[in-house]
Amino acid sequence: MKTLGVVTSGGDAPGMNASIRAVTRVAHSRGMKVIGFKRGWEGLLANTFEQLTPRSVGGILEVGGTILYTVRSPRFKTEKGIEKAAETLATNNVDGLVVIGGDGSFRGAHHLSRNTDTLVVGIPASIDNDIFGTDETIGFDTAVNTAVTEIDKIRDTAISHERTFIVEVMGRQRGFLALAAGITAGAEVILVPERKIRHTEIFEKLEQNEAKGKKSSIIVAAEGVGDNREIANRIRERTGAEVRLSVLGYAQRGGSPTARSRLLACLFGSKAVELLSKKHGNLVVGLCLGKIATISLEKSCTTRKALDLDLLQLANLLAT
Amino acid sequence: MKTLGVVTSGGDAPGMNASIRAVTRVAHSRGMKVIGFKRGWEGLLANTFEQLTPRSVGGILEVGGTILYTVRSPRFKTEKGIEKAAETLATNNVDGLVVIGGDGSFRGAHHLSRNTDTLVVGIPASIDNDIFGTDETIGFDTAVNTAVTEIDKIRDTAISHERTFIVEVMGRQRGFLALAAGITAGAEVILVPERKIRHTEIFEKLEQNEAKGKKSSIIVAAEGVGDNREIANRIRERTGAEVRLSVLGYAQRGGSPTARSRLLACLFGSKAVELLSKKHGNLVVGLCLGKIATISLEKSCTTRKALDLDLLQLANLLAT
Amino acid sequence: MKTLGVVTSGGDAPGMNASIRAVTRVAHSRGMKVIGFKRGWEGLLANTFEQLTPRSVGGILEVGGTILYTVRSPRFKTEKGIEKAAETLATNNVDGLVVIGGDGSFRGAHHLSRNTDTLVVGIPASIDNDIFGTDETIGFDTAVNTAVTEIDKIRDTAISHERTFIVEVMGRQRGFLALAAGITAGAEVILVPERKIRHTEIFEKLEQNEAKGKKSSIIVAAEGVGDNREIANRIRERTGAEVRLSVLGYAQRGGSPTARSRLLACLFGSKAVELLSKKHGNLVVGLCLGKIATISLEKSCTTRKALDLDLLQLANLLAT
Amino acid sequence: MKTLGVVTSGGDAPGMNASIRAVTRVAHSRGMKVIGFKRGWEGLLANTFEQLTPRSVGGILEVGGTILYTVRSPRFKTEKGIEKAAETLATNNVDGLVVIGGDGSFRGAHHLSRNTDTLVVGIPASIDNDIFGTDETIGFDTAVNTAVTEIDKIRDTAISHERTFIVEVMGRQRGFLALAAGITAGAEVILVPERKIRHTEIFEKLEQNEAKGKKSSIIVAAEGVGDNREIANRIRERTGAEVRLSVLGYAQRGGSPTARSRLLACLFGSKAVELLSKKHGNLVVGLCLGKIATISLEKSCTTRKALDLDLLQLANLLAT
Repeated sequence: MKTLGVVTSGGDAPGMNASIRAVTRVAHSRGMKVIGFKRGWEGLLANTFEQLTPRSVGGILEVGGTILYTVRSPRFKTEKGIEKAAETLATNNVDGLVVIGGDGSFRGAHHLSRNTDTLVVGIPASIDNDIFGTDETIGFDTAVNTAVTEIDKIRDTAISHERTFIVEVMGRQRGFLALAAGITAGAEVILVPERKIRHTEIFEKLEQNEAKGKKSSIIVAAEGVGDNREIANRIRERTGAEVRLSVLGYAQRGGSPTARSRLLACLFGSKAVELLSKKHGNLVVGLCLGKIATISLEKSCTTRKALDLDLLQLANLLAT
Repeated sequence: MKTLGVVTSGGDAPGMNASIRAVTRVAHSRGMKVIGFKRGWEGLLANTFEQLTPRSVGGILEVGGTILYTVRSPRFKTEKGIEKAAETLATNNVDGLVVIGGDGSFRGAHHLSRNTDTLVVGIPASIDNDIFGTDETIGFDTAVNTAVTEIDKIRDTAISHERTFIVEVMGRQRGFLALAAGITAGAEVILVPERKIRHTEIFEKLEQNEAKGKKSSIIVAAEGVGDNREIANRIRERTGAEVRLSVLGYAQRGGSPTARSRLLACLFGSKAVELLSKKHGNLVVGLCLGKIATISLEKSCTTRKALDLDLLQLANLLAT
Repeated sequence: MKTLGVVTSGGDAPGMNASIRAVTRVAHSRGMKVIGFKRGWEGLLANTFEQLTPRSVGGILEVGGTILYTVRSPRFKTEKGIEKAAETLATNNVDGLVVIGGDGSFRGAHHLSRNTDTLVVGIPASIDNDIFGTDETIGFDTAVNTAVTEIDKIRDTAISHERTFIVEVMGRQRGFLALAAGITAGAEVILVPERKIRHTEIFEKLEQNEAKGKKSSIIVAAEGVGDNREIANRIRERTGAEVRLSVLGYAQRGGSPTARSRLLACLFGSKAVELLSKKHGNLVVGLCLGKIATISLEKSCTTRKALDLDLLQLANLLAT
Repeated sequence: MKTLGVVTSGGDAPGMNASIRAVTRVAHSRGMKVIGFKRGWEGLLANTFEQLTPRSVGGILEVGGTILYTVRSPRFKTEKGIEKAAETLATNNVDGLVVIGGDGSFRGAHHLSRNTDTLVVGIPASIDNDIFGTDETIGFDTAVNTAVTEIDKIRDTAISHERTFIVEVMGRQRGFLALAAGITAGAEVILVPERKIRHTEIFEKLEQNEAKGKKSSIIVAAEGVGDNREIANRIRERTGAEVRLSVLGYAQRGGSPTARSRLLACLFGSKAVELLSKKHGNLVVGLCLGKIATISLEKSCTTRKALDLDLLQLANLLAT
C-alpha cells in the first residue's frame, strides 16, 4: 500500500474533517502517500485532488464540514462515470480508497469497487445514523446535541406560553435523530417514520398530559413523518390551543464535532488505514457492540438498520 | 410605595426572569411588597398572582422564559378589560406596576395607565429590539448570539457544499435582529423590511462574489422581508445553483440569557423600582447613548425606532 | 416492591437529575412509591427525605447537579452509621434502594446491602468514568465535552502566542477524562497516572513537534499525574520557551448534561427499577459492549477498571 | 494613504481576527494595500509581514486568537527598537499603522508614533476592558460570557454540595471582568482590586446569606485581589464549611467571539481606516456613550479608567 486516496461524499457531517486528519496521519506514519479527491465523486471524475500531509490536515479536528468539499454527482452513477473514476484511481496508482460518507456514498463505493483493483473501505459519517453495520455514525452525536440544545431553548418558550410545539428534526427516511433527540430532550411525543401513529394517538397523549397538569408539550418529529404543519393544524383544531411548528434546519449538519464524534472519527480513520495496509478491502468500519468492527461494504449498503422501538417506548414512559 | 406589581407580557425574551429577580430584590430592599401577576394581562383580569420574595426569585437569573408566564390577551384591549385590570390593581393596593415586555405590551400599559392611579413603568424586553427609547432591549443580545451560532454552523455546510443558503431570522416588521446577526456572522447579503431591494441586486451581489472566488454565500433575511422560499427559487432559476432555505425558529426566543441581556435586566429592573419609589410613572426605562435613561411611555409606544442603515452599508462592504 | 428509595452520593455529575427522573417515573408507572433521601448517606442517617412524583421530577432532565443534594458522610462508614441507615430503610419500608454515584458510593452501598433486607442497586454516575462494570458513567461524556470546549479555546491562545500550554483536567487517581479529552482535543501530549513517563519523553515529543513545524503544543494532564506546575517549570527550563498551566476546575462537574449523559441516565434508571421490581439486588447497572448490562455490586467496587492504553498510543500517533 | 500596516500586540483577545478582517476589507475598498506584521512588535523589528487581501482574511471572523500572532517584545521598548520599527515602516512605505491590542500595546504605539511619520491609530482589544477612552474593548464581552458560562456550571455543584466556591477570573490590575461576570452570574460576593475589603466583610455577607436560607455561595474574585486560596482557607477556618477555589484560566482569552465582540471589531476597524484615510493619527477608536468615538493615543494610555462602583453596589444588593 503506497498511495491512499480519500474522498468525502454525500451530505456533510461534523467529524468528517477529524476522520480525514486521522486517515492522513495514520497512513503517513505507515509510510503511505495520501491524496484527497475534491468535491466528492466529482474529484474522481475530473481527477482533481490535493496531496494531504500531517501538516496540511492540522487545525481541522474541531472544524465542521469537510475540507475536501462534497457535492452530488449524478454522473458518477452511470457506467461511464464509474469507468472514469476507476481510470483516475489507476492513473494515480491509488492502491486503497477511503470513502467517508453515508449510505448513498457507500452504494457508489460498492459499485466502484467492483470495477477497479483499488481496495475500497467506507467510513460511516452521517447525521442520520442510518448505516447498517455501525451502532453510530460520525456526526450523529453532534447532530443530536445540536437538536437537544435547540429543543431545550424552545421549551423555555413552550413553558412560558403554555403551548405545544412541534419541532421537526432532520430525517427524511429514518427516525434515529428524532428518537435520540426526543428522549434526551424529554419530548412528550416522538414521531418517527418507522412507526406510523394516528393523529388520535397524539391527541390522547396531549390530553393525558393536560389532565396530569402539564401545561406545555414538545412533539419531536422526523421530517419524513409527513406534513408536520398539517399535524400542528389538526392539533389546533382539536384542542383549540395554539400550536407552533419549528423546523430545525441545516444547523443540525454543521458545527464543531462533539468529543464523541471526534473520537469515532479517530478510531474509524485509524481502522480504515489498518485494513487497507493489510490488503483488506470492500469493507465498512463501524462501532459494533461497543467495539470497532468491520462489515462487508455490500451488506452495509443493502441492509436496513433497525430502529430501537423499545427505546421509543421508554421515551413515552419517561415523558409522563 | 408599598406594594409593587410585576407582569410579563407579549412574546417571551431571555432575561425576563433576570429582570423579575432584579425588580423583586431591589423593591424588597426598599421595604416594598412585590406581587407577580400570572400569564400577562390575564393575571390582571383574573386577579391571579403570587407574592414574590428574594428567595422565590432565586435561581432564575440564568433561566430563559418567564416564571410569571405570558399569554396573548385580546380581552385586555377592550374598555371593559382595562377597567377590570384597574380594579385588580386597586383591590390589591398596587401603587406601582412594572410591565416587562415589548411594544405591544407598552401600548397596553399606556392604555391602562390612563385608567388607573397606579404608576406604570415599562421595562423593554424583546428579541426584536424594536422599542423606541432604548438602544437595546433585554433578550436582543441573546437572540443575536443564538442566530449567529446557528449561522456559523450553517456556513460549515455552505462551504463544504459550495452552496448559497438563505437563513431566515425572526422579525416580522423590523430588521434589527437580521442586521445584527448578518453583520456579525459575515453574511454576504442582508435583507431587512426597512430597505426593500430588487431581486436583481441580490443576483448581482452573488455574481460579484463568485467572480471574486467566493464559492458559497449566506443571505440573512428577516421573516418580514417576504417569501424567502420564493427568493431561494428565483436565485436557483437565475444562477442554476442549488440554494437552501433554513428558517431559524423559536429557539431564537429561548435559552439562558447572555451576560449582556442579564446585565440590562439588572440595570433596568433596578431603575424601574427607583423611579416608582420616587413616584415617577408613565415611563419606560432604557439604554440611551450607553447610559440608563427614561422616556415617556406614550412616546415609546407611538414612535418608530430607526434602523441604522449605515450599519447595513458597512455589512455589505465587509462581506466582500 | 412497593417503596423505592433513591439517593445520590459522592461528587455530583451531570445527568444525576436525569436518572432521578427516570427512576421515579419508571417506578411510578409500575405502581411504586418513590422517596428521595436528602444529602447523600446523611439522609439515611437523619431520616430526611421527600416523596418524589412524576411531577416533582419535571424540568430536571437538563439540569446539572442533583436535586437530592450530596455530601461527604464519614459517619456512614462506621458500623453505627450503617446500622442507623438500615434502620431508616426499615422504618420507611423501603424495599429497594437505588444508589446513584461513583465507586466510593458503591463501596458504601455494598457495605449497607450486607446489613439490610432492602435490595440495593447502583447506578454509576461520575465524571471520572472509573467504575468497573460499565464502559461509561453518567456525566463522563458531559465532562469530556466541557474539557474539550475549554481546550479548543486555549488552543486559540496557544497558537496566537506560539506557546505550550499544560491543561490539567480532573482525575486524581485515573486518566479516563484526560485521555478522552486529550485525544479529541488533539493534545500533543497526554499525561495519565496509569502510565508514568519521564520528563525527557515530554521534552523529546515537544522538540520533535517543533522540528516538524508545530509552533505550539497542548499537554493534557490528569491532576493525579503529579505537580503539573513543576512540569511546566521543567519544560520552561529545558526549552527556554514560555509554558502556561491552566487548571480546568469545577466547571467540569456541572452544566447541562449532554444528550449521551442523559440517554445513559434514562437507560440506567429504567434498568435499575426493572431489576428491583424483579427482586434482583446487589447489582450495578452499566453499559457493557454497547448494551445495558449488570454486574455484582461487590465486583464493581473491588475491581480496577483498565484504561485503554492502545487509545493513548493512537492519540500520540494522531497528534503528529 | 496608499499602504496600511496592521499589527496585533499583547495578550490575544477574541475578535482580534474580526478587526483584522474589517481593517483589511475597508482599506481595500478605499484602494489601499494592507500588510500585516507578524508576531506583534517583533514583526516591525524583523520586517516580517504578509500582504492581507479581502480573500486572505476570509473565514477568520468567527475564529479566536490572531492570525498575525502576538508575542511579548521587550526589545521594542528600547530606543533602538523603536528606531528599527520606524525604519521598517519607512522601508515599506507604510503611511498608516493600525495597532490592535491593550494598554501596553498603546504605550508602545504612542512611543513609536513620536518617532515616525507613519500615522498610528489604536484599536482597543483586550479581555480586561481596562483601556481609557472606550466603554468596551474587543473581546471583553466574549470573556465575560465565557466566565459566566463556567460560573453557571460551578453553581450546579455549589448548590448540590451546599458549598461556597471562590471563582478566580482574570484581571491582575483591574476588576472589570470580575464585576461584569459577578453581577451577571449572580455572585454573592465580588472581589475587585479597586475596592479592598476586609475578610470580616466577606464572613458577614456569607453569614447573612446563611441566615436567609442560602445554602451555597459563589465568590467571584479578580486574580489581582490577592491570594484567593488564602481567602478560601480563612473562610474555611471561620465557618467550618468546605470552600473550593476554581481558577478560570486561559480559556477566558480564547474562543469564537460573541456577536458583540465581532460587532465592535467591525465598527472599530472601519473607523480606524476612515481616520487614517483622512490623515488623522495618534488616536484610539472606542465606544463612548454608545457611539463610535476617538480619543488621543496619549490620553488613552496615560489615563486610568474608572470602575463603576455603583454597579458593584447593585451587584451586592441583587445577590441577596
